[in-house]
Amino acid sequence: MTSIADDTRWLDATDQAALVAAGQVSPTDLLEAAIQRIEQFDPQLNAVIIRWFDEARTTAAGELPTGPFRGVPTLLKDLWAHYAGQPLTNGCQALKDAMPISATDTTLVARFRAAGFVIAGRTNSPEFGSLPTTEPTAWGATRNPWNTAHSPGGSSGGAAAAVAAGMVPIAHASDGGGSIRIPASACGLVGLKPTQGRITLGPFRDESNLGVELCVSRTVRDTAALLDAVRGPAVGDTVIAAPPSRPYVDELGADPGRLRIGLLDHHPFGGPVHEQCELAVRNAATLLESLGHNIEPGFPQAMANADFARRFSAMWSTNMGVGVKRISDQLGRELQLGDVEPVNWAMSEFARGVNGVDYAMALAANVDFRRAVQQWWHDGWDLLLTPTLGEPPVRLGTFANNPQNPMEPMARAAQYVPFTPAFNASGQPAISLPLHWTPEGLPVGVQLVAAYGREDVLLRVAAQLEAAQPWANRRPPL
Amino acid sequence: MTSIADDTRWLDATDQAALVAAGQVSPTDLLEAAIQRIEQFDPQLNAVIIRWFDEARTTAAGELPTGPFRGVPTLLKDLWAHYAGQPLTNGCQALKDAMPISATDTTLVARFRAAGFVIAGRTNSPEFGSLPTTEPTAWGATRNPWNTAHSPGGSSGGAAAAVAAGMVPIAHASDGGGSIRIPASACGLVGLKPTQGRITLGPFRDESNLGVELCVSRTVRDTAALLDAVRGPAVGDTVIAAPPSRPYVDELGADPGRLRIGLLDHHPFGGPVHEQCELAVRNAATLLESLGHNIEPGFPQAMANADFARRFSAMWSTNMGVGVKRISDQLGRELQLGDVEPVNWAMSEFARGVNGVDYAMALAANVDFRRAVQQWWHDGWDLLLTPTLGEPPVRLGTFANNPQNPMEPMARAAQYVPFTPAFNASGQPAISLPLHWTPEGLPVGVQLVAAYGREDVLLRVAAQLEAAQPWANRRPPL
Repeated sequence: MTSIADDTRWLDATDQAALVAAGQVSPTDLLEAAIQRIEQFDPQLNAVIIRWFDEARTTAAGELPTGPFRGVPTLLKDLWAHYAGQPLTNGCQALKDAMPISATDTTLVARFRAAGFVIAGRTNSPEFGSLPTTEPTAWGATRNPWNTAHSPGGSSGGAAAAVAAGMVPIAHASDGGGSIRIPASACGLVGLKPTQGRITLGPFRDESNLGVELCVSRTVRDTAALLDAVRGPAVGDTVIAAPPSRPYVDELGADPGRLRIGLLDHHPFGGPVHEQCELAVRNAATLLESLGHNIEPGFPQAMANADFARRFSAMWSTNMGVGVKRISDQLGRELQLGDVEPVNWAMSEFARGVNGVDYAMALAANVDFRRAVQQWWHDGWDLLLTPTLGEPPVRLGTFANNPQNPMEPMARAAQYVPFTPAFNASGQPAISLPLHWTPEGLPVGVQLVAAYGREDVLLRVAAQLEAAQPWANRRPPL
Repeated sequence: MTSIADDTRWLDATDQAALVAAGQVSPTDLLEAAIQRIEQFDPQLNAVIIRWFDEARTTAAGELPTGPFRGVPTLLKDLWAHYAGQPLTNGCQALKDAMPISATDTTLVARFRAAGFVIAGRTNSPEFGSLPTTEPTAWGATRNPWNTAHSPGGSSGGAAAAVAAGMVPIAHASDGGGSIRIPASACGLVGLKPTQGRITLGPFRDESNLGVELCVSRTVRDTAALLDAVRGPAVGDTVIAAPPSRPYVDELGADPGRLRIGLLDHHPFGGPVHEQCELAVRNAATLLESLGHNIEPGFPQAMANADFARRFSAMWSTNMGVGVKRISDQLGRELQLGDVEPVNWAMSEFARGVNGVDYAMALAANVDFRRAVQQWWHDGWDLLLTPTLGEPPVRLGTFANNPQNPMEPMARAAQYVPFTPAFNASGQPAISLPLHWTPEGLPVGVQLVAAYGREDVLLRVAAQLEAAQPWANRRPPL
């Protein structure tokens, strides 16, 4: 078994699936290898907080669907991704105490299963996914495989740590303000936030909000193949993106042509950006220029309006309030401070203090922002290039709850993530690519943003960058 | 001039455009004919409350775009449809006093102009479009051409009265809870509520809400041709319906096949339905059966849950609150009771008393409703057949403001419109067709509802019904 666990550790999901398809390993072999790696590395990382290894063994030994990822082990994020028969806690102590079992899969989880994945457990998430770190009170901190004193980012930090450590090749993740891109940046992974409406959030969530779901992966091709496997609407979706003209895997290696790319290397509305993040994005610009693209300073001016932060915060807080209300309904009792972390309780209370008209006005203002931001691409730009984060991966504890000033972690978070939330608000696809490491060996991602619906452009360029400056041999010192 | 006004009065927009294209009449001829009819009939109806005849004369005499409706006179509803250089009052006294001039067209108005229409003025709307009648305090009641003691319905009642009276062949209309279908039913017209996201509401409104815009017309082909001319998204839209596989005019006369149609001839969650409305829908069922379709009792069970009314009311009230806030911002002063009609003020105040989390929960519950309703079509039904309204056109004054009980008109409205709002909430296309008249000669419409995005099915069947039981020779006794 040791040799399979070692031999497959750094294979991506595409290669692992190919081994199964060729009959060289069995789904059980791959699952046992993943379990062995989880048991070996997770004590240092605390990424995989719920494990259903025995059920996964039954699945792997049974009749797996013949999807593109048949037999590949993976993990679900502990946030809204129901899996029939297993618990979901959303990083919340009140749910961890109750450990309610889901009656049904979300549609996306069902698609993961139909694609042939063997799902072995859940990865850690901050409570309700609200912070760009993964340190829920309920489950404790996940550590960054590149330096265990540092945060893996969040909210998909458990997923990113598990993939970066080589436990599984790809893991489910979700992004409402950067929660795929942030941990991808912090852990040296590929993190694509798909277009709003690219993948159904049914049956329990709504595509018209900030959140989307997909994965973190080590290779561009894994993300492209997964997007092909799980994209598309379900009955009754509110926002439905037009389908691509061809499979996303066909973009891998395809010539992106000479693209016009705007470079944003400073904070869009004033604030510090770490020199390593500036360096990362400028080096990426130089690399893109060497590949034939046209790089100019430029970004949507709507991003320069600081009102965005206030409006996004209103939407974010309301989502926390909805989360608290839903869990109260689920548990049959009103949650109280103590059931919920101080920062999330404060946001929920804030949202309950906003009236419905003002919240509707915030949503309407966000539509104006969306139109204004998307117009920049319509005016002739192909991509926006930014640092993914304002800082290299921060130390654990940076966003710690402070009951005396409960919004303090959120204020600190705004400094860490000046570049990602705008594209949840605008609905556009954006990808973080691992193109830079600090002198201390910490990963620093670079974000590319395409027009609404244009994951094809992102994946073409991402594959081009991966070929030009491969990161596959970068391994965390774990 | 008299002969052109008389000769063209009952021509539809397609025929009027054909006369222009053939050089048999000029755009100026058609405009003067429409102006003459407005001046002749509107004193009895009060449908056309804002007139820009001189500007329209300049437009008609100038270089009109060579669109499909080149030279056809039409009217815009006095609700959210900005036309650069002209006023818009949304039926509100405070705006009527200020008569603010719009700086820019909405995208849909620009598309009307690009289609070649000559826009001669505005049709009456209840304040903020909130009621199924058209009796704003600001502009007075519009009367039904079929019986001037009765309401033309609302909120597109001015548009419907103008088209039913033969002033113009087609007029812009909008529908947030039935406001195209209701007046179409009450005035003997074709009223298609398009799919949510079929037509941009940019740049000022958002496709993810209840409202959509298109027209009322006398013929199915006019509605189909207009939908072809103006459909499609704009940059930054939130909800974008997939484009049709061929032009909608190609559906006219196309064989719809044998469709499975569910018949709903009673109130979905308990309440009275007038015998003439029952008779209308049962006769329509018989007619559809004679055309080869399969009619069975059946409707989405989610419609039977009375919670819908409460939830819709929360969304409707919030829209009123947003309307009041926007106009306050526009006028630079806080509107007060007295600036706004009591019913709308009460709804706005109600919405301000709801907290943001509860409003977000209402939106989320609406997503659940949407998924459940759309599932019925997915399960194998092609169309739902209902009466459009619960009653024949009511008398003027039925929904009069009552300052002692300001919500009274809205409660009365719920009884009148049991069948239309569900499909604003679900996003589906629905059409009202003039297939029945009461013994007193009042029109009673029948509603057909298709799956999300399937206006093609609606228009095929509508054209089939129009051919089988033509209404073109039905004329109001004006």
